Amino acid sequence: MEIQVMEDILGRNDAIAAENQAIFAKKGIFALNLMGSPGAGKTALLEKTMAALKGDLRLAVIEGDLFTSKDADRIAAYDVPVIQINTSGGCHLDAAMVQKVLQQLDLTALDLLIIENVGNLVCPAEFNVGEAAKAVVLSITEGDDKPLKYPLVFKESAITILNKVDLLPYTNFDMAAAKKDIAKIHPQVPVLEVSCTTGQGLDRWYAWLRQKVEEKKQAGGENR
Amino acid sequence: MEIQVMEDILGRNDAIAAENQAIFAKKGIFALNLMGSPGAGKTALLEKTMAALKGDLRLAVIEGDLFTSKDADRIAAYDVPVIQINTSGGCHLDAAMVQKVLQQLDLTALDLLIIENVGNLVCPAEFNVGEAAKAVVLSITEGDDKPLKYPLVFKESAITILNKVDLLPYTNFDMAAAKKDIAKIHPQVPVLEVSCTTGQGLDRWYAWLRQKVEEKKQAGGENR
Repeated sequence: MEIQVMEDILGRNDAIAAENQAIFAKKGIFALNLMGSPGAGKTALLEKTMAALKGDLRLAVIEGDLFTSKDADRIAAYDVPVIQINTSGGCHLDAAMVQKVLQQLDLTALDLLIIENVGNLVCPAEFNVGEAAKAVVLSITEGDDKPLKYPLVFKESAITILNKVDLLPYTNFDMAAAKKDIAKIHPQVPVLEVSCTTGQGLDRWYAWLRQKVEEKKQAGGENR
Repeated sequence: MEIQVMEDILGRNDAIAAENQAIFAKKGIFALNLMGSPGAGKTALLEKTMAALKGDLRLAVIEGDLFTSKDADRIAAYDVPVIQINTSGGCHLDAAMVQKVLQQLDLTALDLLIIENVGNLVCPAEFNVGEAAKAVVLSITEGDDKPLKYPLVFKESAITILNKVDLLPYTNFDMAAAKKDIAKIHPQVPVLEVSCTTGQGLDRWYAWLRQKVEEKKQAGGENR
């Protein structure tokens, strides 16, 4: 019975996600669903990204959190349009939550929309919100065993960002082992080693985002 | 409709949790539900705990994970009875999962049962599994903003363990701010600063566990 309920919920969610996806495609917006554990560094990565890209791309952010507007406040400081969704305890964003706030954004002047999901390495990977791609941020302080223990989010993500590599000397994280496990789950997926503290590796992340926006541009859309 | 389904699921879970709780009470076993994000250091804390307490307490561990037996293997190395529950993608343990494996443990010779939940700071806090108390482990690398962003797990937990304090010099974690927020959510809750790498603060954790086991002993039970 619970399985049937879950299938119904996922089916309804997929229908709304398809509507969102059609809206983004029509405008030519690249929408990214950014996932990771609490404290993986998703918001820190977005702060760096806003500073680096807002000069030449039209950006907006949707922030998902159970409670508080702490993350949205951090993004707003970069003078980029940002909407906070509070799930009131809910463990993931769903397509309906995202659809409901889209009207608060000017979709006619947007290249890149990043949707930061609730901090959770499990549930968000099960719910599409209409994104063109998913990305996962794993802090190396979480340990190299995480890909095999939480495979779905690594399988679903078009890119894996290994964050806080400045802390590698103080941990027992085995980079080779982690990359081998990620490749087992998702062959050929790009894996970036970055630090939002030192800036290491962020250029590759920006280049990946620019490439995705460029691909959307080539595909056309009202905003182009 | 989804709210009704959720209430039904929680109601059924609570009934089974009460059965588990009655079993533990009858035997005089202190059962602890240990929660935290992926990579907070729950298993590392248990490794230290097994080494420190197995000489004078009768211990067992139930390990909850989506996939793999990595954590159970780590505990088994300490020659302590351990059962792995794999949720196959499920985001939390529930009371029925725990009840199903109890027969694999010798409950007639047990003082302390620690149930390590799935790595997730959200969903596990909503499901009692029959424990006498909950505990939460937060790695300081996750950031000092986490208590207010994930309040339920801090509210439900009888003790908060701030882990990986050896990494404090390399982060911007504000210990005073974190403790203030935890006290707002759960006044008077004990908050321990520990490092499983250096051993700092672990004595207070062991003392807390011994105290809880002693209280169960005073309350009687077949194992006493």
